[in-house]
This record gives sequence, structure tokens and C-alpha cells, in this order.
Amino acid sequence: MRDITVFSGSAHPELAAEICSHLGTPLHPVRVKRFANDCLEVQLQANCRERDVFLIQPLVPPVQENLVELLLMLDAARGASAARTTVVMPHYAYARSDKKDAPRISIGGRLVADLLVAAGASRVLTVTLHSPQVHGFFSVPVDHLHALRELASHFRQYDLSNTVVVSPDLGNAKEAAAFARLLGTEVAMGAKQRFSDDRVTIGSVIGDVAGKDVIILDDEIAKGTTVIELLDRLRERGVNSVRVACTHGLFADGAVDRLGDQPEVEEIVCTNTVPLPDAKPGSKLRVLSVAPALAEAMRRIHDGESVSALFDAP
Amino acid sequence: MRDITVFSGSAHPELAAEICSHLGTPLHPVRVKRFANDCLEVQLQANCRERDVFLIQPLVPPVQENLVELLLMLDAARGASAARTTVVMPHYAYARSDKKDAPRISIGGRLVADLLVAAGASRVLTVTLHSPQVHGFFSVPVDHLHALRELASHFRQYDLSNTVVVSPDLGNAKEAAAFARLLGTEVAMGAKQRFSDDRVTIGSVIGDVAGKDVIILDDEIAKGTTVIELLDRLRERGVNSVRVACTHGLFADGAVDRLGDQPEVEEIVCTNTVPLPDAKPGSKLRVLSVAPALAEAMRRIHDGESVSALFDAP
Amino acid sequence: MRDITVFSGSAHPELAAEICSHLGTPLHPVRVKRFANDCLEVQLQANCRERDVFLIQPLVPPVQENLVELLLMLDAARGASAARTTVVMPHYAYARSDKKDAPRISIGGRLVADLLVAAGASRVLTVTLHSPQVHGFFSVPVDHLHALRELASHFRQYDLSNTVVVSPDLGNAKEAAAFARLLGTEVAMGAKQRFSDDRVTIGSVIGDVAGKDVIILDDEIAKGTTVIELLDRLRERGVNSVRVACTHGLFADGAVDRLGDQPEVEEIVCTNTVPLPDAKPGSKLRVLSVAPALAEAMRRIHDGESVSALFDAP
Amino acid sequence: MRDITVFSGSAHPELAAEICSHLGTPLHPVRVKRFANDCLEVQLQANCRERDVFLIQPLVPPVQENLVELLLMLDAARGASAARTTVVMPHYAYARSDKKDAPRISIGGRLVADLLVAAGASRVLTVTLHSPQVHGFFSVPVDHLHALRELASHFRQYDLSNTVVVSPDLGNAKEAAAFARLLGTEVAMGAKQRFSDDRVTIGSVIGDVAGKDVIILDDEIAKGTTVIELLDRLRERGVNSVRVACTHGLFADGAVDRLGDQPEVEEIVCTNTVPLPDAKPGSKLRVLSVAPALAEAMRRIHDGESVSALFDAP
Amino acid sequence: MRDITVFSGSAHPELAAEICSHLGTPLHPVRVKRFANDCLEVQLQANCRERDVFLIQPLVPPVQENLVELLLMLDAARGASAARTTVVMPHYAYARSDKKDAPRISIGGRLVADLLVAAGASRVLTVTLHSPQVHGFFSVPVDHLHALRELASHFRQYDLSNTVVVSPDLGNAKEAAAFARLLGTEVAMGAKQRFSDDRVTIGSVIGDVAGKDVIILDDEIAKGTTVIELLDRLRERGVNSVRVACTHGLFADGAVDRLGDQPEVEEIVCTNTVPLPDAKPGSKLRVLSVAPALAEAMRRIHDGESVSALFDAP
Amino acid sequence: MRDITVFSGSAHPELAAEICSHLGTPLHPVRVKRFANDCLEVQLQANCRERDVFLIQPLVPPVQENLVELLLMLDAARGASAARTTVVMPHYAYARSDKKDAPRISIGGRLVADLLVAAGASRVLTVTLHSPQVHGFFSVPVDHLHALRELASHFRQYDLSNTVVVSPDLGNAKEAAAFARLLGTEVAMGAKQRFSDDRVTIGSVIGDVAGKDVIILDDEIAKGTTVIELLDRLRERGVNSVRVACTHGLFADGAVDRLGDQPEVEEIVCTNTVPLPDAKPGSKLRVLSVAPALAEAMRRIHDGESVSALFDAP
Repeated sequence: MRDITVFSGSAHPELAAEICSHLGTPLHPVRVKRFANDCLEVQLQANCRERDVFLIQPLVPPVQENLVELLLMLDAARGASAARTTVVMPHYAYARSDKKDAPRISIGGRLVADLLVAAGASRVLTVTLHSPQVHGFFSVPVDHLHALRELASHFRQYDLSNTVVVSPDLGNAKEAAAFARLLGTEVAMGAKQRFSDDRVTIGSVIGDVAGKDVIILDDEIAKGTTVIELLDRLRERGVNSVRVACTHGLFADGAVDRLGDQPEVEEIVCTNTVPLPDAKPGSKLRVLSVAPALAEAMRRIHDGESVSALFDAP
Repeated sequence: MRDITVFSGSAHPELAAEICSHLGTPLHPVRVKRFANDCLEVQLQANCRERDVFLIQPLVPPVQENLVELLLMLDAARGASAARTTVVMPHYAYARSDKKDAPRISIGGRLVADLLVAAGASRVLTVTLHSPQVHGFFSVPVDHLHALRELASHFRQYDLSNTVVVSPDLGNAKEAAAFARLLGTEVAMGAKQRFSDDRVTIGSVIGDVAGKDVIILDDEIAKGTTVIELLDRLRERGVNSVRVACTHGLFADGAVDRLGDQPEVEEIVCTNTVPLPDAKPGSKLRVLSVAPALAEAMRRIHDGESVSALFDAP
Repeated sequence: MRDITVFSGSAHPELAAEICSHLGTPLHPVRVKRFANDCLEVQLQANCRERDVFLIQPLVPPVQENLVELLLMLDAARGASAARTTVVMPHYAYARSDKKDAPRISIGGRLVADLLVAAGASRVLTVTLHSPQVHGFFSVPVDHLHALRELASHFRQYDLSNTVVVSPDLGNAKEAAAFARLLGTEVAMGAKQRFSDDRVTIGSVIGDVAGKDVIILDDEIAKGTTVIELLDRLRERGVNSVRVACTHGLFADGAVDRLGDQPEVEEIVCTNTVPLPDAKPGSKLRVLSVAPALAEAMRRIHDGESVSALFDAP
Repeated sequence: MRDITVFSGSAHPELAAEICSHLGTPLHPVRVKRFANDCLEVQLQANCRERDVFLIQPLVPPVQENLVELLLMLDAARGASAARTTVVMPHYAYARSDKKDAPRISIGGRLVADLLVAAGASRVLTVTLHSPQVHGFFSVPVDHLHALRELASHFRQYDLSNTVVVSPDLGNAKEAAAFARLLGTEVAMGAKQRFSDDRVTIGSVIGDVAGKDVIILDDEIAKGTTVIELLDRLRERGVNSVRVACTHGLFADGAVDRLGDQPEVEEIVCTNTVPLPDAKPGSKLRVLSVAPALAEAMRRIHDGESVSALFDAP
Repeated sequence: MRDITVFSGSAHPELAAEICSHLGTPLHPVRVKRFANDCLEVQLQANCRERDVFLIQPLVPPVQENLVELLLMLDAARGASAARTTVVMPHYAYARSDKKDAPRISIGGRLVADLLVAAGASRVLTVTLHSPQVHGFFSVPVDHLHALRELASHFRQYDLSNTVVVSPDLGNAKEAAAFARLLGTEVAMGAKQRFSDDRVTIGSVIGDVAGKDVIILDDEIAKGTTVIELLDRLRERGVNSVRVACTHGLFADGAVDRLGDQPEVEEIVCTNTVPLPDAKPGSKLRVLSVAPALAEAMRRIHDGESVSALFDAP
Repeated sequence: MRDITVFSGSAHPELAAEICSHLGTPLHPVRVKRFANDCLEVQLQANCRERDVFLIQPLVPPVQENLVELLLMLDAARGASAARTTVVMPHYAYARSDKKDAPRISIGGRLVADLLVAAGASRVLTVTLHSPQVHGFFSVPVDHLHALRELASHFRQYDLSNTVVVSPDLGNAKEAAAFARLLGTEVAMGAKQRFSDDRVTIGSVIGDVAGKDVIILDDEIAKGTTVIELLDRLRERGVNSVRVACTHGLFADGAVDRLGDQPEVEEIVCTNTVPLPDAKPGSKLRVLSVAPALAEAMRRIHDGESVSALFDAP
């Protein structure tokens, strides 16, 4: 029926290319012009009329630039009479702003969901939202893939008989427990303590970790401060070894090196939902690709086949 | 300016009366007519024109009847030219349906939020949502009160030096930790194990509870099955005593008695966000009233004063 | 093109099964889960993605349960990426709330139409609305079938030379006149008199009925009180015989028996837009099926053929 | 608080002036410019900012000109920051298009309601809608006045002991019965017969009229063809005298004279919801003013007082 | 896939017929009924269900009648379940109301765009908008054709070596410059001077025109007053010859004759976006047809091919 | 009534402070937090409940950062129950993207207008839009001030008897003519010539400039390339002196110096709608403040007084 037509914004062209290679469909170029007054103008460089358009753009730094570029791409696709426009957003960074935990703050996760729809998004395909409730922020259908399956496959190569999955945060505890169930291990978690408005540290670890091989699991690692703190607590409790895993490896401010320098850390595993630095020699970083999963989901969305059949929430 | 005008649906007239008594404003009657074909018709029995209307209705059983009645009240207020209509919903039961954890299911928490707005709600006042993200399901302003403050005041009368707060569920772990911080105690939690699609039990307790005085905290207790299971695990771990606390004490199918019959349980504490059975002699149930807090919030909403100033999230 | 996919809610699975048998398409199951707090969750048990989904649910008692269940089904279909969702609502009970005849009342007929659209309805297929204006309450396309054709076919088996069609109510007079035209008979009608706010009785019959074979026609019979009153007036005017006909035979509180016990009543005729009690031996009730008409309309909706060509308003 | 600011379009400035004189508020001018290409531009000639604006415009011929002019006035008021804009539409002509009685026709009554809201109407004040269900076509609050009270006051000056109210049409039967109840008389009605798609005549009169003083009541009289036909039937049935009453006296194509020429007709009574020709000497036309009722309703809308208290539906 | 189904309103049936002849598709009739109260009702006389419907209607005098008729046609198409409804509006007259150059005036260009969408327009096809920004007034996709290409083809038959294109108005200067670029000529323009609120005249001509062959270019000519004034200025400046060109030749109040009577004017060229008077013998009017371009655009819209590829803005 | 509450985003706090000083109202702080993943969170630091909130933020570089920050501020104000939120956007940079002059491009001017409304803007106050039609892109009321009045006051200090206003672009010709009328001078303009897709130069000047004192007027100057080119043409035509004026002095990439280095340029005049570099000694830049005008407009918006009365479009 309607042809599939894929465009990528500036955020992560490598992932887009890899997805298109799996799909066997060309990646069409987008012209992004920056005017002297710093405004952007977007031109989609292939016919969109009555096409099934997919726009690939994770919200990675510079987030605001990438977000506005995406909104302009949506507007251009709508004006160009796309039959349907699916936002493929492997990392929805604003999902962390998912509640009002202080008076008079923005709830960015809901606002950006509304902006995407206002700009013309028909549907959204995303990976590992910070909390599963963020799905409900969207008024259009969302296909929400989890990378836990990919991460689990990776860890099953190891002997997991003495392993415990540790969440750095109570808020991620359910996800960590689900991952532990996939691997057949125990679960434990760090409990944060708030000292002042700004100062939060991990005060204790709840659950047994002494002598264990630990897999730290988080959805996103940016500066890695929380994981470093958790490592201090785990060290005090006498763990045997540590591997760090996350879906979205943002690794800001040299976080890969800072984590890799910790002697207990044997491996840092993430996926390529966001662009990653080139691997240095001896780096402990292992990157798993979500491109096959995203490509298969896009194919099923286009063909009207069940997506949940393949990518069940764990 | 605009007068405040308060109506109550059929769900919880006692709470509405108590709120109005705190506000010093009359509770206006609502005529609910049921036609022979089982449809409802609602008539607000006082002038709403340019008034600041508040409709008090928690979503308690029969939930569907109370929900549709509320939607009809909203429609009547809009048609009667209310200047603003605030839904006072001390218990938003559909908040539990806050994510899509199986394919092709409804997300009732978002849907009902949209229905309330479609029917004319200008804003919502609610207490202790099942997850804080549900706030973001609403496209109108929400004032979200927490009963943790009231519950904490109650427990501070006891010696808490040997106490631990236990959440029956990892999903409620953050809330339990916040409550523990308020009380200056430790926190622990039950971890559920899924045996099949329908069978879930608490397989273990994460954290130290042996010899402790336990306060079990949940947002809502309906049949109490989870708490009973948790009690089994706590008993195995040798706790000293148990108190049970929740905001929404639905207590379906004789849950108060079933919990009260457990010898370790010294007290069951909840608030009156939902209607409660009359206390039997010797009952272990203690009910704290949220009416003063709701009345004060309504007064501040009406007068345009800060609500967060009083009822900060803990 | 897109496959047709049919689901039935809890309201009238027999009709849904009969429709699907006419269509030669399977009736897919819906899992409705009731939580301990009385909230419902719906799961559609077959792939909806890019399908042409039909949800069959008349608004019959318990109306509020069935309505909310339908709204949740709509939400689930939208979230599951249905290409189009048609509500097949053979009885739209809230259509009786179609005007504001008292201050500050709800207009349920319009409100529920808006709720269905807010929950995701793309279009509606219904039978014999209480007033034809209710069609205009919907902001989505409506196919409005009339059962008058089916009813007329049934009555044409009798000698109608001495027959008059009588409407119990002036509000239904136009419909009765249309039916009389179909049968080639005269028309008469009862005129209600209002004694107080609540007490309304039929004070007189306008038109000639003495010595006639009467067919009483109403759109819906619930308790049957109005028809019983009309029978008293007709008896006083010396009618020869009476048959009672309606589209929606709700027959609450033993109405079939109560009507059947009236000696003049020779027959009670209705359709199966709503579930009906099993026929007792000697019952005067005759049930005509609307399943063939609904199945044919659904087939035409799916295939993009004219529906009006077959089911013209009389 | 906010000042009341009243404008009139071109449709009926006399009524607007009379209303403003009752309100004691100035009628502000509107400049309507017609460009060479026949487009209209509207300028409201008084400050609207944060004002409570009322736009008076019945939909009378030329209806399309007056409708578009009104939509432009609404747009101008919105752009000029009116706090609230109430459409005062004493005659909503499109209300007659209230159902879909043929395939693929427009439902003008609903469409125009939506257009008014799209153009910025906050609320509507109208008189005697063709059918009460049209109220439900609006998504904004409607105050719906009835002129039956004014008409009844007028007729109570006569001896009504031998009087019957006759509706020319079954569709208006309920309204006629309500009017008869107000006057304490009987009711009868004409039944139309359809000969072909276009040809409809009144075939019979249902109810007793022989020897009676008849009051024919309709909501609107345009060409008067139906009333003339009804007069033929009434003459055949030997009525004593006839008075004709309606709310909206459009009287197209010399209808006043044509009706006045009928010898049985003693009086033609209508209101000034629409502009009326100057009375000729000896004219049988009597015009009752709705300006006091509209002015009082506007005052109450502005002051937030109950409108229903004064102008209950009969 | 979906069949194309074309209807024409009353505004310009000749153009519609010519377009359909190019498309090789029948032009389906529309029944427009005018009620005695001057309201319109529209019936589309061919099945629209799941069809790709095109409604052809330029906004020409009587503009308000044609606009409301179009809105009713849109409503009828929506109610009749059209899959998509494209408004083909070769002349969007309200585009001239594109800014707020006086306080409290309507912006008809935006309002009418919103009304079309509120009535059900899925997309719009139009020719030579008064200003290109009007494109952005629509919230649905717009295909905006320019007739400059057709006009340029016509003028290329002449020797253009001594030619200058003159815009009568600074507001149209960019368009005139684009046309001059197409023809390879110079450009000049008239500058209006405002004497009072209503009186505007062309005070001067900016640029060299002495001894030149002038082509006056405007988007629309109605009464032609501005062009006549410009001719006075050009005559004073000693031009050699004048040809007048425009897209929309409304020619109100005998404008063709008035322009043709000017001795310098050798030719008046326009397109048939609007209905034109029959040519008189000796008339200087030359009419170019946009039917081939519109038909080709409609075919491409229906087939999902690029429209911009053919009809680039100059 | 409702208090005025003013916040400033990060874009131009100096202007906000100056406005608040004119208003005599405090400028409330906004906390903008940047997370490790580069997302922003905004907290308004003063109570907004039922307040008349003004958010001051011109769209200046970094435009995307400032735009998203503004959208988050709007969301926060809405969630915090502001009674009304007015965006004060002295420079609406995206207004330049006001038409679709190439296929498949975004129309940023309309999109951003929709995003502001989606995020909660009740109204907009802005200065000198790139084209007046952009006003119509907004679905909320816009107060559009012009700085021409301020600029004209400045230039009236000079002898203007030999002066001509020159627009660098035909698109700005109308604005330049209006400015010339205000000053009582002639007008001329540059005509651009397009060499390729990207290369545009001013090929000629239309109108008399030889020996004149020129005032170049543009709405916005960013890099100044166009003005520099125009200077070349003017020099060739032998002008006497040049002054450069614009409303929005963005002056990117050292444009002030580059312009100031041109010997003919005696003065560069702009307003402070955008932040400006500190004046260097000997700089030819003169900055006029729009703060008094914006403050007065805000006061009138708050008090419901006419804004147009003061700030008529010229």
C-alpha cells in the first residue's frame, strides 16, 4: 500500500542508517538550514505525499535543538501531506520530568508529548521510558520497546549463579526486579537520602549483596554520579564483582572513563539508542544495537502486524 | 468575588458534609434520577451561574455508577454556566491503571482523566495518587495532596526507635521511603514474584525487619490479600509488632476483620477519603480525617492562595 | 484491504454472535477484569493494528457498567492502533436525555456522544434513536437504522383494513405517523397530562380509535407504565383489539407479563437490540432479529458501500 | 465587574435598540465594509477588552449574509480580547435542519452551532428553538427562552372556554400541548401526508375541532403554506373562528396578507424576534415584544443570576 | 484504491465541468434547497462513503451564499463518511483580509480557514493567494498553485525587449518582481498615498516606465479602480503601451469595459478561476484556463504524487 | 482584581527588569535547571494561582533553548493555576518562516504559534512582526506593537527635507512606505535578484536616491549582508548620507562594526527588543528603548483598557 519513507534528524544519523539497512529502504536526507537569526528551517528531501513517514530522532544533547528540529520535521511532513507520521524516538529524555515534586514546576514529559502531537505526530515508537506511566502522557498510540531482552541475552553468557541485580534507586526497583526475574537472580537496591534540596546521596543498600557478583541496572546513565556512589556502598558491603548496565548510555563529562576506572567494574554495557563515543583501546564499554529491534518494529507498524507479539514488556 | 458552591454526588456525602462544615458553606443537594431504562439524570439543586463550583466525589464502589454520575454532574454544571468547576476526588481509583503492561489493554487512568475534562472539569483536587506520574495524565491543573503528613502525625505518638516502614510492593517503595524519612526510621519492602499470568505472591522481603516494630504502608488496601501475604513473610522473619497504614481504606470483603484477626497487627490506620464501615467494638481500625486538609485546599483554590505552601509533597 | 475485526462487550453477546455468524467473521473475545477496588480493565484479545474494528455494545442495564466498559474498549482499540473503530450500539439508552426541560440538568444524550468520541470512536451504528435529532449530537458519522421496516413486515401478515397506529406520546407522533404510512393505516395518539412535577398520566386519546384494531407503537418499552395507562384509555374508547410494538424491548420489572396479562393485548412485538428474557410457554412476546440488518450495514461500512441505499429512514 | 458591551449586526437593529433601551446601556455601532470582491469586514466600534460582550443577530433573510457577518463579529470580538462573547440570536433559523431525513444531506443546525463556537462564541441566548433537542447541538451554554408565556398572556384576554389549540404538524404537537395546558384548553393537530418527495399536504386533522374557536400555533411562519392548508381542513370540519399564533413571524412573500385574507382568521399574533413589516391600516397582525424578556435575560447572564428562575420552559 | 468523486457547488459549474472533462471523471450533481426561511440544505447526489471527495467552489459573488453552501457541502460529505474531502477553491476571496490593520476588525482570511476545517475540510487546493502567508492560516495541508506560469507563457508570444512589469501596489511588489524574472524584464510599482481613512490614491510610480511597454500585474481585479489610477500615472510618465494581467478577473461593475475603454490598454489577460462574462465582439479580454492545471493537481493529490514537482512557486 | 505577576526567562532579563521598573511591580525569579541529560526544568518562583501572569522572552539566540524554556514556563504557569498567561515576546524570530516557498518545508511561524498555545499561552504581546499576516497565525489574541513610532521620533530631530526611506527588500516595501509617510519623505527600495538557490543579491534600486540623505529601514538586521549590498548600490547611485534603522538589532557576527565601518553610515538605530552588546567608545549605534511602550501595553492589558488607542499601526 502506502510506501514507507524514512528520514533522520541531526541527532543520531548512524542509528538511522543502521535501521534503514535492516529495513532495506533508503534513508532520505533532510536539509536543516539555520538562519542568521538562529531559527531553523527544515526541508524533507523526498516526496511524503500519502507516504508512511518515519522520523528518527532521539532526544540527545543538544536536546532543545534536536527537539525543535523534530517538531519542524513533523510540521513539514504534515504540510507535505504525509499519510501517517511516526516519531521514532529511541531515547525520550524528557520522560524523566514525569511528576510534579515541587510547586510551580513544569512536567516536561507530558508537555513534550503534547507538543509532538500538536506538530503532527500520528504515533511514537520509543525504547525504555524512564517510568512506564509516561506511556500514558501521549494521546497517540505508542509502541514502547524494552531493551531488557537485549541486555539479558548479553549477560546470560556469564555464570549468574552468585549474581544479584542492584538498582541504584528505589524508583527503578520494579524494573530491576523484572530484569532479575529474566536472569533468575536476586534483587537489591540503593536507597537515596536527601540532605538538602540539592544534595542527595545513596545512604544504604537494601538487600543482600555481600560476596555477590553485582549487575547494576539503570535506565539511563548520564554523569554516572549515582552509580559511583552506589559503588562506594557496594564496596563497603564487600561485593565480589560489578558490571554496569543501562539502556541509554549518555555518558556525559567522561562518565565512561570515570566508571571504567573503578577497579570492581568489569564491564559497562549499554545500547545505541543514543550516539556513543568511539571505543578507546581497552575500554570496558560494550554496546548492543537496538537497530534490529527498531527496524522490525517499524516493519510491523508499517505492515499492520502485532508489535507486542515480539517485544513484550518483561 | 464569585461565590463558592459545593455539591456532593452519591459516593461519600459524609465527607462532603464534614468538608462544608469546615468551610462554613452549605452543601447543596443534587437530585439523581434513575430512569426505567437505568440511565441517570442529574440536577444540581442550586444556582451555578458564574459560581465557583466544587463537585465532591471519590471513585469508590460502585465505581462505574459514581463515575458516570460525576460526569453528568460536570455536564450539568457546564450547561448551568458555572464559572469554574473543580472536581474534588479524594480517591482516584482508576489511577491504578497507569501503564500498558500487556498488549491491547486500556489505560484507565489516562482515559478517565480525559473524560473528566471532556465533561467540563476545570481542575481536580485529589489525595495520594497511586503513582505521582498520574498527575501528568490530566490536561487541567491538579492539586495533589498527600495524606502522609496526617499519617505521620498519628504514628509520632509511639516510640519509633525500633521501627521500620515496609512497603508491600517495589512500586510503592519510594513512597515508603519518603514516609520513613518523615518518621526517621529505616525502610524495607516486599518483592513480588509472578508464578503465572494471574498468580503473584510476595516471595521475599528486602531489607532488615527481624525483631522490628513494623509499619506497613500502602496507598490503598482493598481485599488486603497482599498485606496478608506480607504478614506471612514478616512473621517468618520474626518481627516484633505490626501496624498497618494506608490512605485509601477500601476494605472490601471484610478486609478490616481479616487484617484485625492477625495477632501481630496492633492497629489499622487509614483516612476517610472513602466511606468506611461503622466501627465495631474492639475494632483495630483508626480513621484520620482528611476533611480539614481538603477544606483548606478548597478555600485556597477559591481565594487564589498557594496550595503547595501548605501541602508540600513529602 | 484492512480486515474487519469484531469484539463484543458484556452487554449483549448473543446479538454479537448472531451478527458475526451473518458476517461469516469470528467474534473475538474481550477480557474484562474487575479489580478489588471495583475498577475495570479491558483487554481486546485479538490484534487490532490497522484493522477495521467494530465494538458491539448496546447501552442496557447495568447501563453505567456497560458504558464505562465500552469507553475502555475504545481506549484499548485506539492504543492498539486500530485503523478505525466503529461503535455498534443497537440501543442508545441515553438518547432519551435529549433536551434541557428543567434548569441545571445534564443532557446525557449529548454528553455520552462526546465521551464516546473522546475515548476514540470513529463512527457509530445505531438503531431507532429516541428522537431523530440525537443524530446531530455526534461529531462523528452515524449510521442510523430504523427497525420500522422489520416491524412493518411483521404486521403486514395481518388484515390491516380496520387498523389504527397509536402513539402513547405526542413526542413519538411523527414516528407513529411514518409507521402508519408504511402500513396504510390511520394514526392516533395519547396526550399526557402533567399533574405535578413527577406525576404524568395520559389524559386523553386524540384521533379515532373506537372499534378499531390498534397497534401501539413506541420506540422503547421499559416498565410499560405508559402503555398500561394508554390501554385504560383505549378500553374506555371501545377498541376492538390491541397489539403492542416497539424497537427496544427493555421490559423491566416483569413488564412483559404485566402487558401480556391485559386481555385486549394479542401480541407484543419487539426486536433484539437488547437482550430479552427466554420465552415462557404461552408468552405473547414475538422477537424480530435486527442482526441481519446490522450485519449487512457493517459489511457495507467496511466495504464503503452506501448504507442509506438499503436502510432508508421511512 | 466587567462592563456589559452590546453590538448589533445588520439583521435586526430595531430589536437591539429596544433591548438596550430596556437595559439602559448604549448600543454600540458596528462598521460592516463590503469589498469590491463581495467579502465582508467587520469592525466593532467600541472597546471590547475584558468586556462582557453581547452580539445581537437573529438569522433572518438574507440568512447567509447575516450568518457570515455574525461569524466575523465573533472573530473581531475574540481578537479584541473580549472577556466573554454571548450571541443573542432571537431566531435560530438553521434549527429546522435538525435531523438527517435523507442520505448525504447537511445537518445545518449542528454545523452552524459548531461554526459559532469555532468563531469564538462563549454562549448563546435564543428564543423558541424549532425542536428542544437543538439545545444539545451546542457545546457552549445556551439560555433558551420560550415566547409561549408572552403569547399566553395575550390570549388570556379572550374567552377561551370553547377553544382548542391546533398544531399544523405532528412534530410541533408537544409544544402545542404545552401551550394548551398554559391556556387550559384542548389540543388537536394536523397530520401531513407525503405524496412525493416534494409534495406534502395536510391530509387530516386529529382531534375535535368542530364548532371550536381555534388557535393555530406554530414556532415559525414563513410563506404560510402549511397554515393555509390547515385552514382548508379546519373549514371542512366546521370551526367557529381562528387565530394564528407563532413566535417567529417571518411572513415571506406577502404571507401576512394571504393569511389575513382568509375570512375565518381574526388575528395573527407573533413576536418581534425577527424584523416585521410596518403595520398596514386594518392589518390583523399583532406583534408582541420579546425585548423586555431578552433584556432581563442579558442582565441576569451578566450579573450571574439564575435565568431559569424567570423563564422556565412551559 | 478509493475512487475519486467530484462535486461542484453553485459558484462556478463551468470550471468544474472543464476540470472533470480533463480528469475523465463524472461531475456529480448537488441538490441545494432553499427553505422559505432562506436557510440552505445541501444533498450530495452520489455515494461518498470511503471516497476521495473533491468539492469545487471558488469564493465569488455572492460570496456569503457560496461560502455557506460550501460549508454545508463539507458537512454533508463528512456525515456521508467521505474518506477525505478536498476543497478546490480556485479563488479564496477572503485571503485579502489577512491582517489586522485597524483595531477590533475581523481577520476573515484566518477565520474562514478555520471554518472550513471545522466543517470537515481535509485539505485545500487553491490558486494565487493574495499573500503567500495566507497558506499558513490553514491547519490542514494546502496545495497552492500559481497562475504566473500560465500568464508568462501567454506574454512570451510578444517582443518583451522594451517591457517593464508594474505592480499597482507595494504589497504585490514581490509577486511582480517574480513575474518580471520569469519574463526577463524590469519591474516598477505604484505607491499608494492615504489621504483619509477611506481615500487612497496612487501618488507616484517608483521605477522607470517612460517609453516602455508596460504589463500591469495584480492578483485580483474587481472594480479596477486602482488600475485606472495607475494608468493615469503611467500616462503622465509617457509609457508606450499597456497590457493588464491578473489571475482572478472578478471585473465587477463593468470593469472590463472601463479598462478596455482606456486607449493605451491593448489587452486584458486573466484566468478562469472565477466565472467570466461572455466575450463581447471586439473585447480586449483574453481568458486562460486553469482547468488543466487544477485537474492535474487533483489527479496527483488522489494518486499521492508530488504536486510541487509540477507547479513550483515561481 | 487579579494581581499582575511578571517572570522573565533567560533571553533578555535586562529588558524585563526595565519593564518591571516602569510598571512598579517586582520581577519574579525563575529557576531553570539543566539535568545531566541536557533537559530543562523550570520553576516559577512566585505564586501564580489566579494571577495575571506575564512571561517575558524574546526569541533570540540560542533560539531553540529560549523557545523550549518559554514553553516549559507556560506549562508551569498553567499547572500552577495562573488565571491568564500572556507571552511578552518582543522579537518573534520565527515570524520570518511565514510561507511555503519551497516544497516540503516547515512553516515555523505558524508551528511555533501553535506550540505556544498548546503549552498554555492565553495571549501574546509582540513588536514589529516580519510580516503583518503573521498576526493571523495565532489562535489567541495578539497585541502587535510597532516600533516605527519610536524610530520616527528619533529621526524627526534631523532635517529631513532631502531624505528618502529605502527598504532593502520589496517584501518590506509597504512598511518602508508607511515609515516614509510618518516622516513626510519619499520612498525607494532595493530589488533582489536570485542567481541560484542560495545566492541572492540586490541587483538594482527602484526609485530616486541620487544626492539624497538615505534612511535604510528593515525590521531585523542579523548579519547585515543585505544592508551592506544595498550600501554598494546606493554608493553607485551617489547618495549623500546614510542612516540605518531597524526594530530588531540582532547584529550577529560583528555586524555593528561591519556596518559602522562603512564611511557613508552616520548612525545605526535600533531598539532593545533583543539584548545588545555594550556600546564601545565611538560606536555609531543608538538604542531606543521599547520598555516604556511594552510596560504601558501590559498595564492596559491587565486593566482591560484599549491597547490600540495608544499604539496604532502606522
